[in-house]
Amino acid sequence: MTLGELAEQLGLTLSGDPQRPVSGLGTLANAGPEEVTFLANPKFLSQLEKTRAAAVILRADMVEACPVGSLAAEDPYLSYARATALFDGAPAVPEGVHPSATVAAEANIGEGASIGPNAVVETGADIGAGVSIGANVVVGQNCRIGAGSALMPGVVLYHDVHLGERCLIHSQTVIGSDGFGFAPCKAGWQKIHQLGGVRIGNDVEIGAGVTIDRGALEHTVLEDGVIIDNQVHIAHNCRIGKNTAIAGCTGMAGSSIIGANCTLAGMVGVAGHLEICDNVHVTGMSMVSKSITEPGSYSSGTPMMPSRDWRRSAVRFSQLERIYQRLASLEDK
Amino acid sequence: MTLGELAEQLGLTLSGDPQRPVSGLGTLANAGPEEVTFLANPKFLSQLEKTRAAAVILRADMVEACPVGSLAAEDPYLSYARATALFDGAPAVPEGVHPSATVAAEANIGEGASIGPNAVVETGADIGAGVSIGANVVVGQNCRIGAGSALMPGVVLYHDVHLGERCLIHSQTVIGSDGFGFAPCKAGWQKIHQLGGVRIGNDVEIGAGVTIDRGALEHTVLEDGVIIDNQVHIAHNCRIGKNTAIAGCTGMAGSSIIGANCTLAGMVGVAGHLEICDNVHVTGMSMVSKSITEPGSYSSGTPMMPSRDWRRSAVRFSQLERIYQRLASLEDK
Amino acid sequence: MTLGELAEQLGLTLSGDPQRPVSGLGTLANAGPEEVTFLANPKFLSQLEKTRAAAVILRADMVEACPVGSLAAEDPYLSYARATALFDGAPAVPEGVHPSATVAAEANIGEGASIGPNAVVETGADIGAGVSIGANVVVGQNCRIGAGSALMPGVVLYHDVHLGERCLIHSQTVIGSDGFGFAPCKAGWQKIHQLGGVRIGNDVEIGAGVTIDRGALEHTVLEDGVIIDNQVHIAHNCRIGKNTAIAGCTGMAGSSIIGANCTLAGMVGVAGHLEICDNVHVTGMSMVSKSITEPGSYSSGTPMMPSRDWRRSAVRFSQLERIYQRLASLEDK
Repeated sequence: MTLGELAEQLGLTLSGDPQRPVSGLGTLANAGPEEVTFLANPKFLSQLEKTRAAAVILRADMVEACPVGSLAAEDPYLSYARATALFDGAPAVPEGVHPSATVAAEANIGEGASIGPNAVVETGADIGAGVSIGANVVVGQNCRIGAGSALMPGVVLYHDVHLGERCLIHSQTVIGSDGFGFAPCKAGWQKIHQLGGVRIGNDVEIGAGVTIDRGALEHTVLEDGVIIDNQVHIAHNCRIGKNTAIAGCTGMAGSSIIGANCTLAGMVGVAGHLEICDNVHVTGMSMVSKSITEPGSYSSGTPMMPSRDWRRSAVRFSQLERIYQRLASLEDK
Repeated sequence: MTLGELAEQLGLTLSGDPQRPVSGLGTLANAGPEEVTFLANPKFLSQLEKTRAAAVILRADMVEACPVGSLAAEDPYLSYARATALFDGAPAVPEGVHPSATVAAEANIGEGASIGPNAVVETGADIGAGVSIGANVVVGQNCRIGAGSALMPGVVLYHDVHLGERCLIHSQTVIGSDGFGFAPCKAGWQKIHQLGGVRIGNDVEIGAGVTIDRGALEHTVLEDGVIIDNQVHIAHNCRIGKNTAIAGCTGMAGSSIIGANCTLAGMVGVAGHLEICDNVHVTGMSMVSKSITEPGSYSSGTPMMPSRDWRRSAVRFSQLERIYQRLASLEDK
Repeated sequence: MTLGELAEQLGLTLSGDPQRPVSGLGTLANAGPEEVTFLANPKFLSQLEKTRAAAVILRADMVEACPVGSLAAEDPYLSYARATALFDGAPAVPEGVHPSATVAAEANIGEGASIGPNAVVETGADIGAGVSIGANVVVGQNCRIGAGSALMPGVVLYHDVHLGERCLIHSQTVIGSDGFGFAPCKAGWQKIHQLGGVRIGNDVEIGAGVTIDRGALEHTVLEDGVIIDNQVHIAHNCRIGKNTAIAGCTGMAGSSIIGANCTLAGMVGVAGHLEICDNVHVTGMSMVSKSITEPGSYSSGTPMMPSRDWRRSAVRFSQLERIYQRLASLEDK
């Protein structure tokens, strides 16, 4: 590809030699002379003057300051994101059904779909056009996978899981496992069979090692455009609103509802049976133990300290009620 | 099924038409006229008068208030749990060994057992009667799986893992992986090979994406009736007592012992080499850093706050020792 | 094996009968008369006089106090670690390619390598000498696995993942999945394709259910001798220094760098784009939200308390700024 072709594909204004070859993308600090890079965050401005890249994707008002070729963009980070799609060398699963796959006669395989080695597609499954099913994937009975979606190696869908179009599910993720439902009884625990399914919208990406449980009576639901990082756990009957993003290792207990356009940072814990409204941000490792009804940013936890100092603060935390009472009694005097 | 048949199977007293057809279960709010629902928690009482269900499982003293059919139960939630088993449409693995499975000649496969596509059963494994082994499951050498247990697709048992009867293990769970044992040495870390196994009792359910490590010298042990949610990590040589329940994303470090009838909420961290007595409840995201010797409920962490307010509290937390000293010095005056 | 042979293999000085048979290792408390045990931690000294073991690995100055055979060692724990390798009965994958495996014609399989049932090795992969690939493992295009490494059942390597020599990767671990990179756009999120790979050094052990994402533009890197426990998540472009140890359930956000010889305890959260210098220890469940530039031990969180007491402290935590102001105003008077 040349710089000129890249500019055209991304719809950007090029300053520089349109014939210059481009072999890939790189960081501002390390891109080589055949690579294109980007400048989105002003804090990296000092790296701009030293860059060896073929060209830099940046805002129009930075073109003057750019010592190499430039591609002027309204939103350089977004243009960089679009450029990555042009240089992605990730291999595709070959079209058709691999001879080692086990596909039920009653499953429907759409046009141009790929079914990888040892994949299992069970009765009643409906695989859309152009869907990519990786090696060792299991698609349970009566699942539906919308056109253009991809399941990476090792994904397991239990029965009755519906996935929309253009979804991407990473390896070892499990969707539709039983919700954690048990009634206490004399002998211990009586299992509550989980009769609901999972319904996932279009353009959803789910990371590796995620678990999403099926609903108890109704479905667990992820709306369109939701993005979920690795090792997230979503319990039965949760609902996650459109375009909400959930970072790694976060866990949601059962029947909780998250609105649209929320961002949960990593390792957040969301208790069960609560609601988070639209446009909420929760910072990393926070414990969401009650509903959130106002947009904004929420946090819990304590700051990192040297362990010796932390131990003292921790002891005083456990005495806080007594400390408060002593303060109040001093005020009374 | 009819209402009358359902009442008989659950041992409940029906008020209503015993011939009325029942096609499934639903929630109090959304159950349709061919569905049965339940009322266990009085906070949903207001939904009772509006329900469209065929019948409601509820306490005998609520029958009068029920506008539709009723099934009087001593413990409505438990009766509902039993009812779910009657309506579960989860598909079963067909009996017998799938042609694509790899079963060692020296493995023992019990009567009526099912071995799914691409499953691997290694030498010396003993699979009990009626056991269900899902697609892509690996059962290592000398494992034993008790009658009636089920391993969902993708489960991996390393060698020498014993599982009791009627256990259910969800997808991608790993049992018997090496405990995290290393001795420091000049070059870095010397691996301690993990020579123990894992012993799991009867009627144990383990969620998806769980990891349970094998013991260093002795076994890691889960007693009868233990239930474990998704993405839990149990390190080497832990022991978990009868009927204890562990919610999602909880992690236990090595050699810790939990008693019987405990409940650990989600994302709890249990440090190593400690003991928790019977009948302890730990609330979500708590850090159990020392042994618990008295039954009761335990917690740690701080409450969720708007981030701006939280930052102030967090700074003051780091100053707590100094704040305490200032208070004490004021008291001295 | 006899005691004499064991002493010779471990390079230790035996006091006792060199002909005595040894069938395995056990704990100081429970080792039988054909087992060898060890005493490394003085707090178990009281168990020494009651041991029934054939011999005890211990420091030279403890030989006198030992009522049975002894193996004097400079570092008894390290010698015990080495002894475990001699008694490990873990089965090996048979040499050669299992007939059910799918190996691309263009993959290179080293001498003495083992490829288990249903394993998939894709085009351009280079499998070193003596490498063991377990059942259902997927090795993506252009991966390289160094001599003597082992991948346990169910491991998935995406394309372009390089693994050094003598590495051990436990089941269900995923290496090379897409980093969680998205640019906000009008429609929601624009995926940033992840163009980097993963580079892992020699002698690295990674537990079960771990996820390590590929880099966005450059590689995610683990240096030689790193050891990682189960269910750890390492995001794109992290770098982990030589011999650093990371315990279970810890999560690292993107682009963070950890130095050499660090130890992160369980369920630690490391925020993105920060640096931790060499020789840092982080205690369990701590939140590392800024860079650490001095070696030492760091912590966050609050201590476990009975829930009733904790609730009071938690409320006072949320009032800490106001409490501080009241104290300051009292001091002013």
